[in-house]
Amino acid sequence: MSEGIHTGFDEQQYPYINKGLEGIVAFSTSKSFIDGQKGELIYSGYLIDTLAENATFEEVCFLLWNDRLPNAEELESLKKLLIEHRSLPQPVLDYIKTTDKSAEPMAVLRTAVSMLADFDDTHGKFDDTLFEGQAIDITAKIPTIIAAFDRARKDKDIVAPLDEGSTAFNFLYMLNGEKPGEQAEKTMDLCLILHAEHGMNASTFTCRTICATQADMYSAVTGAIGALKGPLHGGANTAVMNTLLELDKDPDTADAVEFTKKKLANKEKISGFGHRVYKTFDPRARLLQTMSKDLSEETGHQQLYEWSMDMLNTMKSEKDIDPNVDFFSATVYYSIGIEPDLYTCIFTMSRVSGWTGHFMEQAANNRLIRPRALYVGEKGLEWTPVEER
Amino acid sequence: MSEGIHTGFDEQQYPYINKGLEGIVAFSTSKSFIDGQKGELIYSGYLIDTLAENATFEEVCFLLWNDRLPNAEELESLKKLLIEHRSLPQPVLDYIKTTDKSAEPMAVLRTAVSMLADFDDTHGKFDDTLFEGQAIDITAKIPTIIAAFDRARKDKDIVAPLDEGSTAFNFLYMLNGEKPGEQAEKTMDLCLILHAEHGMNASTFTCRTICATQADMYSAVTGAIGALKGPLHGGANTAVMNTLLELDKDPDTADAVEFTKKKLANKEKISGFGHRVYKTFDPRARLLQTMSKDLSEETGHQQLYEWSMDMLNTMKSEKDIDPNVDFFSATVYYSIGIEPDLYTCIFTMSRVSGWTGHFMEQAANNRLIRPRALYVGEKGLEWTPVEER
Repeated sequence: MSEGIHTGFDEQQYPYINKGLEGIVAFSTSKSFIDGQKGELIYSGYLIDTLAENATFEEVCFLLWNDRLPNAEELESLKKLLIEHRSLPQPVLDYIKTTDKSAEPMAVLRTAVSMLADFDDTHGKFDDTLFEGQAIDITAKIPTIIAAFDRARKDKDIVAPLDEGSTAFNFLYMLNGEKPGEQAEKTMDLCLILHAEHGMNASTFTCRTICATQADMYSAVTGAIGALKGPLHGGANTAVMNTLLELDKDPDTADAVEFTKKKLANKEKISGFGHRVYKTFDPRARLLQTMSKDLSEETGHQQLYEWSMDMLNTMKSEKDIDPNVDFFSATVYYSIGIEPDLYTCIFTMSRVSGWTGHFMEQAANNRLIRPRALYVGEKGLEWTPVEER
Repeated sequence: MSEGIHTGFDEQQYPYINKGLEGIVAFSTSKSFIDGQKGELIYSGYLIDTLAENATFEEVCFLLWNDRLPNAEELESLKKLLIEHRSLPQPVLDYIKTTDKSAEPMAVLRTAVSMLADFDDTHGKFDDTLFEGQAIDITAKIPTIIAAFDRARKDKDIVAPLDEGSTAFNFLYMLNGEKPGEQAEKTMDLCLILHAEHGMNASTFTCRTICATQADMYSAVTGAIGALKGPLHGGANTAVMNTLLELDKDPDTADAVEFTKKKLANKEKISGFGHRVYKTFDPRARLLQTMSKDLSEETGHQQLYEWSMDMLNTMKSEKDIDPNVDFFSATVYYSIGIEPDLYTCIFTMSRVSGWTGHFMEQAANNRLIRPRALYVGEKGLEWTPVEER
C-alpha cells in the first residue's frame, strides 16, 4: 500500500494521484477502436458506417460476442434464442407492476436485471461455456423490462413480447401496443447498432471490474446500468431533448442561436457537444443527423431539427465544438415517440451487447482490478469515551 | 485513445498494460490505512484494535461517514435513525418472499438494495446534504433483507425488526426469531466492526467508479454488492467453512495437518490464507482468532477450532503464510449459528459502512473514472453478405 501522509497533505505534491485513471492502459480489447482524429469508430474490425449500412442489431450482438460476423445458420439460431428469451419471469413482472410509478426507469431496469439472476437456470454461473447464453438472456429481456415499466407507470396494460420480429420491431410494439412501420423499425435498429459499443467508458469499465472478481454476468450488467445511469455518463441525450423542449414551450419567439450564445456567456453546460475522445465530428452523430433530418420532416417536427442545426452551427462558430452521439439521438428518439426519460434505458438496451462482449473478454484473460488510494487521514488517535467528546 | 495494433499483437511488447491497475494511485482517502509490514489497520485515525476494544458498529459507521467519532447526542440520533429505517417497503418484502428459494443470498441482497431506491423519498438524488440519510437507509435495511430471505427460503415466518437494540442484536433476533445472548451480540458487533472498511478493494473501487458518474448511492452499493459476490473477492470465508465441514464429515479419522499438506502437494488453493497487502498476521485475524477460540469452547465446536489451528500451523511451517480475516470469521459465524452461504452477506452488512463513506468522499472530490484499452482486433474489414459467410 501507499505510504500514508499524516496531516497537511497537499494533493499538488503528489502528481501521481491519477483520479480519473486517464491515460492508464488497463486492458487489451478486440471490441472497438476509436480514432478520435479521423472520427472513426470500429467494432471488431468493421467501421461503424459499414455496420450502419449493412448490419442488423442482432448481427452486431454476435459480432461483439464472437469477434466475427455470424453465418446464416448462426444468425438464425441467435435470433430464435433472443425471441425465446423475451418473456419475463412472473416475479419480475410483479415488481414492475407494483413498484412506485414515479421510480426512475433506469433504477427499475437495474433492479429487474439484477432479479433475472434468480431465474436463470445456472444462477449466472461463472463458466465460459454459459456466458453467451446469459448474454442472450439479458439482451432479450431488457427491452421487455423497459416497455413494461413505461406502460405500467402510465396505467396501461403491459404488452407481452411477440414471438417473431427483430429486437427493434418487438420493442416498439411492446412500448406502443401496435406494430411499428418499416421506417420506425429501421430507425430503432440503427440506433441500437450505433450505441452498442464504445471502448472503455465508465459503465463498460464497471462491468469488467465486477467480472474480474468472477462474480456473475447479471452482477456485472447490473453494476454497469448503475454507472450508465449517472448524468456524467449516460444521461446526456435526455438533457438535450429537455433543452429543445424548453425552446418548444414558446415556439414563436424561440431563438436557438441566442439561447445557445446566452448559455455560453453564462458558462452553462450545453449537453450533446464535445467528447473526450473525438476531436472532430463523431461518426455516429453524422449518421444520426441524417436520420434526424429525414424523420423530423416525416413526423412534422422540422422545427426541432432546425433548432438543433441552429445550436450546432452556433457551437461550431463560437467554440469550434462538434456534436456528439447524444445530440441527434435525442430528436431521433423523440420522433419515434419515445419519452425523454427513457433515452438512457434505450442506450442500455443497445450497450448491453458491448458490456457482455467485454465481460467474456475479461473472463478469458482475467486479473482482479484494484488500484491504490493514498491515505491522507489522521493516525494514532487515542480513544475518548463518548461522554467526553 | 491508444494506438491500435493491427494483428500479431504480443502483450509482452506492451508492458504498460496494467491489467489489475496494481500500484496505480487513483484516490486520496481518509477512510483507512493499512500497514502490511507491521500488520496494522487504521479506520479514520483509530487502530482497529482500539475500535475492537471500545467502539460499537454504529460508532464506526459515524466515524467512516464523518472522519471523527460522534458525541453522545450524535450517536443517539444515529442509532434512532438506524432503528427507524429497518423496515422494508412491502414490494421489497414481496420480492423476497416470492423469488426462487434456491436464489443466491448475495443476488437477492443485490436486487433488494437496488429496489430500495424506488422507495427513497429522493430516489437517491445526488446531493451531498442527502448522502448520510441515504447511507443510513441502506445500512439499516441490509440486515433486514438478509434475515428475511434466509427465513423465507426455509419456509419460516419473516421476523419484523425490533424498534430497539443494536444492529447486531436486531439482526440475530430477526435471523433466529429469538433475542440473542450478550456474548452472541458482542461477537456479531465485533465482526461488523472488523469488516467495515479495508482500503481500495474491488467492491469499494466499483462503488467509487459508479459514484463518479454521479449516479446515486443505491446504484453504487448495488454494484459493490455485485463485485463482493465474486469468489475472488468476498466469497473466501464460505470456502473456509466448507473446508472445515468437509473434515467434519468423518471427524474420527479427520487429520487437518495431512489434509492441508495434501492440498499443498496438489497445488490446490486453500482459502483463508495470504493477502496481497499483509506480509504478517492480519490484525483482524488475530482478534477473530481469540473470539473463535472462546466461542468454540462455549458452543462445543472445539474440534473445528483445533482443525483450524492444525491448518494454520501447517500453512505456517510449510509455506510461511499467515491466515487472513476470512479464516477465523468462518468459525466465528458458524458458532453463532449463521449458515455458511450467508457469510458474504454478513460481510456486506458491515462493509456497506465503508462503501458509503467512500461514496461521500468520491462525490466531494469527483472525477469520472475511465482508463484506456489497447485495441488488438482487426481493422478495415469489408462487409460480406450473410449468405456468403
